Amino acid sequence: MAAACEKLLQLSTKIVAVGRNYAAHAKELGNAVPKEPVLFLKPTSSYLPNGGIIQIPHNEGSLHHEVELAVVIAKKARDVPQSSAMDYVAGYALALDMTARDLQATAKSAGLPWTLAKGQDTFTPISSILPKNLVPNPDDLELWLKVDEEIRQKGSTKDMIFKIPFIISHISSVMTLFEGDVILTGTPPGVGPVKEGQTITAGITGLVDVQFNVEKRKKPSSS
Amino acid sequence: MAAACEKLLQLSTKIVAVGRNYAAHAKELGNAVPKEPVLFLKPTSSYLPNGGIIQIPHNEGSLHHEVELAVVIAKKARDVPQSSAMDYVAGYALALDMTARDLQATAKSAGLPWTLAKGQDTFTPISSILPKNLVPNPDDLELWLKVDEEIRQKGSTKDMIFKIPFIISHISSVMTLFEGDVILTGTPPGVGPVKEGQTITAGITGLVDVQFNVEKRKKPSSS
Ligand SMILES: [Mg+2]
Ligand SMILES: [Mg+2]
Ligand SMILES: [Mg+2]
Repeated sequence: MAAACEKLLQLSTKIVAVGRNYAAHAKELGNAVPKEPVLFLKPTSSYLPNGGIIQIPHNEGSLHHEVELAVVIAKKARDVPQSSAMDYVAGYALALDMTARDLQATAKSAGLPWTLAKGQDTFTPISSILPKNLVPNPDDLELWLKVDEEIRQKGSTKDMIFKIPFIISHISSVMTLFEGDVILTGTPPGVGPVKEGQTITAGITGLVDVQFNVEKRKKPSSS
Repeated sequence: MAAACEKLLQLSTKIVAVGRNYAAHAKELGNAVPKEPVLFLKPTSSYLPNGGIIQIPHNEGSLHHEVELAVVIAKKARDVPQSSAMDYVAGYALALDMTARDLQATAKSAGLPWTLAKGQDTFTPISSILPKNLVPNPDDLELWLKVDEEIRQKGSTKDMIFKIPFIISHISSVMTLFEGDVILTGTPPGVGPVKEGQTITAGITGLVDVQFNVEKRKKPSSS
């Protein structure tokens, strides 16, 4: 089961992320609490397995960590009602929704997409997948994140504004989800910048943890 | 070759779209001509093969057609220089970047992502893939689109602000492209709404054409 689950990310054709799903995080960035989920896409090319190196792009301002619960889809889902939405979950993972915050701020004020801010390689560090039988209550998980020795984020999925069945139902009413697709469910408060040479550790208390070093992106001189 | 090419869309893990890549289209929507490509993502779940039905979502305002040249990637591309960018092209297709224009306008003014406006199922109708040997000069193709008998869009890829080698090089500096990934290169002027019961035909003059009927989305009552 765990091995089969692991392969799911290789099938993944999209990452659908929910923004502003914790009231306290919406507030810390000066955003209103949304009436329906704010959705954006990240490419699967942004995955980074546990132990990998998060790369900070050059000259693009601050890179922020956002610790999030990831939901991994088990099978094709379209127009799924909330009542059966959990049948479409294969498992969970701990993910980071790395965000080039200054690029995002510029995009927001210009009415432009968040793709550069959210979609670069290594911007979705992710743990191994926990099969759902190991996670009896996904609505009561503690997420935490440290930068070096400093605790930056600690929150509970209890505080998600939109819960997992609603999110799956809502997204599947917009677009078909496929086996291996990943939903990022939003971040609790405490987001902030990471710098070259720092180490991020993060986890779901009692279930999984991950570690990533942060470096500047090395770009070949030819490009 | 054509058969192998056809299978590429099944491998596709992302659609990277370029916005405002024809000055006359940027102008018709009241946007400035961009200094670098405006990039956004569409999910591969939005593909619709030739002959399919474009579904208009309920209560989401106008759905606009945008006819575009699609570039299909042949192999993994990261930090590709412009000088070798064309080596990463497998072929081309004619695609429509269907856009829920009112949702997009709302998203733009709120600084929110364009995912709902661009990412719904059937929002990326696409032709069969033309292997690149059949397209000697992708910078001089005529794109056209009709709604019923009315010609709505006619333009030449000559007028693209950012040319294909630059676009591939630029995107690959942001995110890794994989075999089967698709780049939509922007639309010439003439975008406009389609309504239930209309038929869109579109093509690349002399190379390929496609036809799609437009209907209202049928949503199961359970959701
Ligand atoms: Mg996030
Ligand atoms: Mg987007
Ligand atoms: Mg377009």
